[in-house]
Amino acid sequence: MQKVCLVIGAGAGIGGTVGKRFATAGYHAVLCRRSDEEGLLRQVAEIEAAGGSATGRLLNAVEEGSIENCVAEVEADIGPIEVVLYNLGAQIGNRSLQETSYKNFELGWRLGTFGLFRTASVLCPRMEERGKGVILVTSATSAMRGNAGQHSHAAAMGGRRMLCQSLNAQFASSGIHVAHILIDGAVDAPDTLGKLLGAEQFQALREQRGGENDGLMLPEEIAQTYFHVAQQHRSAWTHELDLRAYSDLAWWNH
Amino acid sequence: MQKVCLVIGAGAGIGGTVGKRFATAGYHAVLCRRSDEEGLLRQVAEIEAAGGSATGRLLNAVEEGSIENCVAEVEADIGPIEVVLYNLGAQIGNRSLQETSYKNFELGWRLGTFGLFRTASVLCPRMEERGKGVILVTSATSAMRGNAGQHSHAAAMGGRRMLCQSLNAQFASSGIHVAHILIDGAVDAPDTLGKLLGAEQFQALREQRGGENDGLMLPEEIAQTYFHVAQQHRSAWTHELDLRAYSDLAWWNH
Amino acid sequence: MQKVCLVIGAGAGIGGTVGKRFATAGYHAVLCRRSDEEGLLRQVAEIEAAGGSATGRLLNAVEEGSIENCVAEVEADIGPIEVVLYNLGAQIGNRSLQETSYKNFELGWRLGTFGLFRTASVLCPRMEERGKGVILVTSATSAMRGNAGQHSHAAAMGGRRMLCQSLNAQFASSGIHVAHILIDGAVDAPDTLGKLLGAEQFQALREQRGGENDGLMLPEEIAQTYFHVAQQHRSAWTHELDLRAYSDLAWWNH
Amino acid sequence: MQKVCLVIGAGAGIGGTVGKRFATAGYHAVLCRRSDEEGLLRQVAEIEAAGGSATGRLLNAVEEGSIENCVAEVEADIGPIEVVLYNLGAQIGNRSLQETSYKNFELGWRLGTFGLFRTASVLCPRMEERGKGVILVTSATSAMRGNAGQHSHAAAMGGRRMLCQSLNAQFASSGIHVAHILIDGAVDAPDTLGKLLGAEQFQALREQRGGENDGLMLPEEIAQTYFHVAQQHRSAWTHELDLRAYSDLAWWNH
Repeated sequence: MQKVCLVIGAGAGIGGTVGKRFATAGYHAVLCRRSDEEGLLRQVAEIEAAGGSATGRLLNAVEEGSIENCVAEVEADIGPIEVVLYNLGAQIGNRSLQETSYKNFELGWRLGTFGLFRTASVLCPRMEERGKGVILVTSATSAMRGNAGQHSHAAAMGGRRMLCQSLNAQFASSGIHVAHILIDGAVDAPDTLGKLLGAEQFQALREQRGGENDGLMLPEEIAQTYFHVAQQHRSAWTHELDLRAYSDLAWWNH
Repeated sequence: MQKVCLVIGAGAGIGGTVGKRFATAGYHAVLCRRSDEEGLLRQVAEIEAAGGSATGRLLNAVEEGSIENCVAEVEADIGPIEVVLYNLGAQIGNRSLQETSYKNFELGWRLGTFGLFRTASVLCPRMEERGKGVILVTSATSAMRGNAGQHSHAAAMGGRRMLCQSLNAQFASSGIHVAHILIDGAVDAPDTLGKLLGAEQFQALREQRGGENDGLMLPEEIAQTYFHVAQQHRSAWTHELDLRAYSDLAWWNH
Repeated sequence: MQKVCLVIGAGAGIGGTVGKRFATAGYHAVLCRRSDEEGLLRQVAEIEAAGGSATGRLLNAVEEGSIENCVAEVEADIGPIEVVLYNLGAQIGNRSLQETSYKNFELGWRLGTFGLFRTASVLCPRMEERGKGVILVTSATSAMRGNAGQHSHAAAMGGRRMLCQSLNAQFASSGIHVAHILIDGAVDAPDTLGKLLGAEQFQALREQRGGENDGLMLPEEIAQTYFHVAQQHRSAWTHELDLRAYSDLAWWNH
Repeated sequence: MQKVCLVIGAGAGIGGTVGKRFATAGYHAVLCRRSDEEGLLRQVAEIEAAGGSATGRLLNAVEEGSIENCVAEVEADIGPIEVVLYNLGAQIGNRSLQETSYKNFELGWRLGTFGLFRTASVLCPRMEERGKGVILVTSATSAMRGNAGQHSHAAAMGGRRMLCQSLNAQFASSGIHVAHILIDGAVDAPDTLGKLLGAEQFQALREQRGGENDGLMLPEEIAQTYFHVAQQHRSAWTHELDLRAYSDLAWWNH
């Protein structure tokens, strides 16, 4: 059976690109995203055109049982999940406390924290039994410090980071490698940053900092490090690392 | 009108004792706890016997609207809340991932993170209008690092800490002092540690480390620092501090 | 014998003011500074005029044996040092790597890190024997993150912070309270910020942010917290806390 | 001209092995260590036998001008240093404050902090002019928290970490990639851990945790991550990451 890399949150930025990177190395990539079936099919087709294998799934991660069923079905139908990338974001842009509804705050937690807990709850026992597994978690600056306007996002990501540490503490010695990967900068990704900024602003940002300036983080390059971490020998595992463009200040410098 | 100190989570440990400390200084203490009406009445009676003034309220913080109504009623009936202490814990003891149900994990978040968000959502606009206010938040070691068995607690407290930072970032310049107080050790408190350990183990711990050994944190002494922080002049505010017994190692040392 | 509060680095900002605060509470304040004998005598006179007792000493802390002799003489002539405030700064303003000479870098370490090590080396055994003592250490944002232009300062303060933690780890259980106090903002202090900015810029800053705006940290208010920390009961000690003006962003927010 | 990887602190553990890893990829490795010329020659011979190219140099890093001359000579005689690994340790084993002499403390700083400053001072202007360069810095748990017995080591490593951050803040946008790599565990390295423990204890540790248990960190595997970091595209650089064996707890968990 082929080893599987499951991507929860496989947009056209980090998620999809990491899936593609693993597919290149012989993994079967299972790409899950909430919407845009067309985009999803295109991603699968691209991987297959390059000689890899992939499956696309629409997945509404906040729906009860959705992640749990997905994991069970993938393991039954395709093969054991060796690597999972939890890549769901919870960024809703800068909003003051008054502009942050209870519903938004709860949704932030459901996507940012609880979804990872659910994923781990169903996958860790399976991985533990197999004595190996990799859980890659994309994280954000807000996991390290709360800014004004980030009430929902910071709370969700702060919880996510601590959850990664507790998962690592329980499961590393059983062979499960949990990595908390801090994306500390703007990613050149139309599905996330693009939607957040709107088409026009995103284009302007790309012209100013993107292209040969390398001032936007390139998903292809980010994916190299995700892949490297997943391949680390168990005598030298990374639990936490940051990533940012050379031209950006680190979060602690601004 | 008397200035009010509202305590959400006023058990016989930190919460009730901090309420009493503020009452000693002339605040009207509003003590809220989920159960044990008898204990609550006793706390109020003690404060009154010492010449202070206090009100007790039973409050189920996870119930919809409970905190919101409490704040509205206290402000309408008693006076403006100058200090709020958010003291609800989310510790459920060490449990492996498999032993941590979705319900427990969600409850941890409701008590540990969302309740503070709700409190801030209703109180910050009021405090902002008055140009002053103090939000004291009791926190735990799990806000700083996740241990095995602390999946729910660490996620809840990690979220709480980041929320404190984002609240501080938005509201400090409007005169609202948010303080994240890290309780990094065992508190000599029958309502929390006592219940967690059970009567017998708690008594044994008290005999071994408590009393004149001062190896358990004394709520009366903790309360002195809470009070000090709330009185700091706005040119020199503390946002985060830790507290532990002299005989304990700091969380980063073990 | 009177209990002694020794201040190493007693300029007209935090150092001298903390000394005065302890003198008000009955300590004999020993104020040490490198230069400005006149200013030193004035500080002593002020304390005495207010009914307190104090001694002034000129002390070149980088000179071999200077701190060691000072401690020995104070203990022999005046009394046991119950509280020491290590308040020597190592800020030399923003300088690029190329503008930071080896000599500057080494001086930063001598003042920022090594001086504290020397102080602890001679005082901790004495305090340990007495079963009590307080070591207050003024620290700076640069202990938490290195910015461009802070090569010397950040290295010195980063070392200082870790040294505080190792001292605390060894000596807390012997009754020595070590506190690392992060001054995260501009202090209204002519001897440090004033000299760094020059008279004109300092006056402009004071007009813009000082006075009733409370946007500069007031030494008198800072001193209240130093004093509180030194009086904490050993069942509830603070090892680290931050201080900043309400109108300032925390270091992690900018 | 061949691109050069300079290793300062090239013992038979991380340093030498990283040098070998870069040599495999076509770099000329310059291995510098204080003593054991025989060992050094053997390392060079091994690299050459594998088809790589290398130079060995004896270097007493604390000696005035030693690092500076080394850099100048290597650049003049061999080629531009594209990657430098600063790998000098400052661990002297657990010693109480009383057992830590001023001389030891200063030596810790000279090796742990000042040597990196000197290296950066001579290399950064050269790298800046070339618009690229990589500075890899091996670091230790003591950079993150001070334990009892680690007074010298923690102060040195805390300073080193903050210096890495300030170097990164000044030079990243000029194309210099600074990485602070936290080795959070015991490395299977005879020249460092072996000497610290003594032959017998080291052998016992190896038998208990080493070999197929992978409980000691293997230099060959560590080197893979060092190499990966040095190859990261400038749109996605890592500044800080940790490494530990799967069977070890992270520093924050014990």
